[in-house]
Amino acid sequence: MSAARTGGPVHPSHAVLRPLGPDEIAITGGFWGERQVVNAQATIAHCQEWMERIGWIGNFDRAAAGTIGGSHAGIEFVDSEVYKLLEAMAWELGRSHDLELEARYNALVARIAAAQEVDGYLHTSFGRDGQPTRYSNLEFGHELYCFGHLFQAAVARLRTGYDDLLPQVARRLADHVYMVFGPTGRDAVCGHPEIEMGLVELFRITGERRYLEQAELFIARRGTGTLRGAAFGPFGQEYFQDDVPVRDAQTMRGHAVRALYLASGALDVADETADAELAAAVRLQWANAVARRTYLTGGVGSHHQDEAYGDDFELPPDRAYAETCAGIASVMLSWRLLLESGDAKYAELIERTLLNNVLASPREDGRAFYYTNTLHQRIPGAVPDEHELSHRAEASLRAPWFEVSCCPTNVARTLASVGLYFATATGDGVQLHQYGDYEISTTLDAGEVRLRVSSGYPFDGAVVVTVLQAPESEIALRLRVPGWAVDAALSEDAPLIDGAFEVRRGFATGDIVRLDLPVDARVTFPDQRIDAIRGDFAIERGPLVLALESVDLPEGWSVNDVEADPATLRSREGATELLVARRSPGEATWPYASDRPQIERETATARLVPYYAWANRGPSTMRIWIPGGS
Amino acid sequence: MSAARTGGPVHPSHAVLRPLGPDEIAITGGFWGERQVVNAQATIAHCQEWMERIGWIGNFDRAAAGTIGGSHAGIEFVDSEVYKLLEAMAWELGRSHDLELEARYNALVARIAAAQEVDGYLHTSFGRDGQPTRYSNLEFGHELYCFGHLFQAAVARLRTGYDDLLPQVARRLADHVYMVFGPTGRDAVCGHPEIEMGLVELFRITGERRYLEQAELFIARRGTGTLRGAAFGPFGQEYFQDDVPVRDAQTMRGHAVRALYLASGALDVADETADAELAAAVRLQWANAVARRTYLTGGVGSHHQDEAYGDDFELPPDRAYAETCAGIASVMLSWRLLLESGDAKYAELIERTLLNNVLASPREDGRAFYYTNTLHQRIPGAVPDEHELSHRAEASLRAPWFEVSCCPTNVARTLASVGLYFATATGDGVQLHQYGDYEISTTLDAGEVRLRVSSGYPFDGAVVVTVLQAPESEIALRLRVPGWAVDAALSEDAPLIDGAFEVRRGFATGDIVRLDLPVDARVTFPDQRIDAIRGDFAIERGPLVLALESVDLPEGWSVNDVEADPATLRSREGATELLVARRSPGEATWPYASDRPQIERETATARLVPYYAWANRGPSTMRIWIPGGS
Repeated sequence: MSAARTGGPVHPSHAVLRPLGPDEIAITGGFWGERQVVNAQATIAHCQEWMERIGWIGNFDRAAAGTIGGSHAGIEFVDSEVYKLLEAMAWELGRSHDLELEARYNALVARIAAAQEVDGYLHTSFGRDGQPTRYSNLEFGHELYCFGHLFQAAVARLRTGYDDLLPQVARRLADHVYMVFGPTGRDAVCGHPEIEMGLVELFRITGERRYLEQAELFIARRGTGTLRGAAFGPFGQEYFQDDVPVRDAQTMRGHAVRALYLASGALDVADETADAELAAAVRLQWANAVARRTYLTGGVGSHHQDEAYGDDFELPPDRAYAETCAGIASVMLSWRLLLESGDAKYAELIERTLLNNVLASPREDGRAFYYTNTLHQRIPGAVPDEHELSHRAEASLRAPWFEVSCCPTNVARTLASVGLYFATATGDGVQLHQYGDYEISTTLDAGEVRLRVSSGYPFDGAVVVTVLQAPESEIALRLRVPGWAVDAALSEDAPLIDGAFEVRRGFATGDIVRLDLPVDARVTFPDQRIDAIRGDFAIERGPLVLALESVDLPEGWSVNDVEADPATLRSREGATELLVARRSPGEATWPYASDRPQIERETATARLVPYYAWANRGPSTMRIWIPGGS
Repeated sequence: MSAARTGGPVHPSHAVLRPLGPDEIAITGGFWGERQVVNAQATIAHCQEWMERIGWIGNFDRAAAGTIGGSHAGIEFVDSEVYKLLEAMAWELGRSHDLELEARYNALVARIAAAQEVDGYLHTSFGRDGQPTRYSNLEFGHELYCFGHLFQAAVARLRTGYDDLLPQVARRLADHVYMVFGPTGRDAVCGHPEIEMGLVELFRITGERRYLEQAELFIARRGTGTLRGAAFGPFGQEYFQDDVPVRDAQTMRGHAVRALYLASGALDVADETADAELAAAVRLQWANAVARRTYLTGGVGSHHQDEAYGDDFELPPDRAYAETCAGIASVMLSWRLLLESGDAKYAELIERTLLNNVLASPREDGRAFYYTNTLHQRIPGAVPDEHELSHRAEASLRAPWFEVSCCPTNVARTLASVGLYFATATGDGVQLHQYGDYEISTTLDAGEVRLRVSSGYPFDGAVVVTVLQAPESEIALRLRVPGWAVDAALSEDAPLIDGAFEVRRGFATGDIVRLDLPVDARVTFPDQRIDAIRGDFAIERGPLVLALESVDLPEGWSVNDVEADPATLRSREGATELLVARRSPGEATWPYASDRPQIERETATARLVPYYAWANRGPSTMRIWIPGGS
């Protein structure tokens, strides 16, 4: 029961760059290796334990037993959390085969398969005795959304070499979807995009064209107003991206995860159907959203109310939603665009978003998470109960689980497969997009190549590539140079082409190519049109966004009252320090005046921390944008 | 069936200042007179027409007929809209008796009275066949909230001279509440405060102490965690002000209307029970919220998600909720505090909030409204359908009616009674708090006094008080001087005491006292701690906050791209103008950079408009805070 271990979560039939599969690239240690170990040893088990305890996995048992009516645990899309856990387990099993995990995985898949109905339908919230009928709430029921996650979990299983039970379940379910929603079926879409990506990838690995055809239909139907249902409350059609057809939209809008999953699915369809217009529309939406609707951390979503993009340049740091899942969705889209185009800008946003938005979610121990990732915490957050469900956007430290808990499992599947986003191949060479400690072993037109990449990145800018094996004839090794690394240096002469050094020559075993990226701390200013942070500056260091946290200020200080001169930025003993001043404006009875208030100042030196690491030392206030940059 | 026409919406048993009743003060024309005419001729009928058409009034007929189960129109608190309409009608009838309005009023009251149950209970969403049981959802059911609005409507009827059907309904309902929630009844409160104010006022006018006792119980129970119900989602106990007892809270927090209605009711209870500690707590909450959580317009509410106060200094102009009803609630609280203390700061906030938040809601014709009142409109709003329900916080022009439509009726009752907030009396004199065209006729210790107040206010700063009748002995005439009017001049020598000129002398018929308030446009800067508007400035002119609207900019300009030097502020031909520069920062692919972008500028002179009048000339972008003040 073995399938080809090629390609990662995405494997386009036609693309400029070829993704590497789990047999071709592996993280070997370092910064990312540590995170994969924590993910494997803590997060995956944590997710399963929680979902067993609160009955989300048990839903499948009750569905299989026919007793689910009236006893369903959790909201309508908790099935998807189990599927994302399965996807995480599959990638983890593909990375480091573990017999105990394999047994847990198989047992869990068996419980899910038992709940599949005879016609292929599989959802624990709909269609059985005492439940709403199938597809009776396409706006918010999330049935097709959940199916999409099951398809992605099945793809992970197939791409890691196993064509067993879950892929069988997925095919029967996909066949059912085609029966109900296919060309002669119901003219409808799901309120939450996701299935489109899943269907295309299932097509790519099974060759079953109906799945692609179904995805194409879902993309074509979107934006035509099929989502009607009850009044949408504060949301409106834009929330669902059902306001404008995908190929006509100019930017990302509405619910951020929905927008990015939809765009990913649309690009998958465009790539498989050679729909250049659709692909161009997605690229335009990405570019406009990145230029005007994206936080410095790569996070997106400026509105709490509908977890949505704001208007252009509406990027309030204190009300940033910057949902972890939206960051992951952004990585998924950028990865597709990178494969399609080879353009380094997509790899750069992946790096920024992974390091500064997605990684901010899990706690150091991998057992608590941020659902949202604010850029300014005004009041010290509460300490969540380790045994209770938290609300998703409370001002608190990271929480173990949420009533709506899409982030933990999304983090788990992303970290388990993160190395698959680090490098790609073409016929004539290898492209390194992200740096860390990993090894590549793949076959080019000229023959096999094996490389070891070593780096203290993201803290240290030295990247050493050691050739372990190379074909006799010349190949091209491309090393991406981030936009901020203006003085990047390579150990040999090589042209800088489209954001990467390209070393095109013959290589011998033991050859070393060394890239030095200057990771000194630097000051970053915002576009004047971002009203909420006018007059502020931020500090970045290499690919990391830094933050000022109150635990690094004198006792009793809050980040809300400080300002700084960016010229006082200093690096000392590897730490980044800033001279910050605390303003004491006195107590006004009305915060608006004809004159500027007299302000007294006291100063202190504060160390900055990588943003992703904040809130690991107890409740604190925190800010990325510091007043004083004007 | 006549009651005493004294006191307005509020008439404390003990207070420093005595409110004037509808026989004692009347607006005669001018700025406020025009608004009362539009309110009487358009808004009141508009509200009734809408609520007939969409069945909110019909709910009472169906309840009376026993057919309401399954056929209730609208959400659980639409009864309160009908009661606020009744209150508006009552004040309007007290102001200018109109036989046709009287007939409509009586017919409407009869339909409501017919729905009252034998034990006094009256709500169209609960308790009848096919409906949830009474008081089964105190968190969100709004039963007691609706009762409070009925009580206030009944008080308006009583204070305008009629002790007829609605007051009878109110007393039976209040008696029922005491039976169910009284000292020996259920230890519970309503999720939305409001009934407390209504009960105290009903006590004040009927003398029935049980109503005061009941209000005291509701205040004492709040903050003790009686609101449990289902998970509150994003809200939490703070949303309901059930997190901390009223007397222990330090500032306003949670849902803004709830917070301000609760504080108003608490102060009413404190004043009637001589509870100095409770009164001091409300004053502290007011002061802290005004100093740190209030927009320049007087609007409050920084969060869309829960219509709530934000943290201190969290006042984003583009995400300002600044709900019209919260502005009205703020006026209600400040009025109570003004009566209690005589402190001019409360009158000043009333003026600011009425002119710059409440008045921004109704369209010029009185037939469309803003539910929220943003301080920065980034995209031109849509034009709402005049025949469809709108969502409450859409980016649009003013809408005719909302799914949740608390604002139109709240505006109607406020404008119908607004003159009652303009002046007060004491034994020895009269205090003028707000300016416009109105007449006062009241009796002081020394005898009758009649005054005519004339002013082009808020556009013109000249206020002329003409004595129409005066007692022989000396009395004190106090004229409030707003904080911004630093060069205010009076036509005679008089001391400026606690924010008001006090003219204490004998007056003769025909005597004139003239106050000149300098209403030149002036620049206002924000407290540095309000991150969202750092480096910005606003323009105020007299009591009016001005706004920059794109219709006053060259074709194709948006307010999002402009900045200005506050020194270019000019007054010309009565208009306020500013030289604004449009920034063209070029098209960046990423809105953060190590260098400030090169910016090209083109300039234009723009007229500013009073904020309340914006969006009356078609879709536009608008901002109050203008970049360039640093």
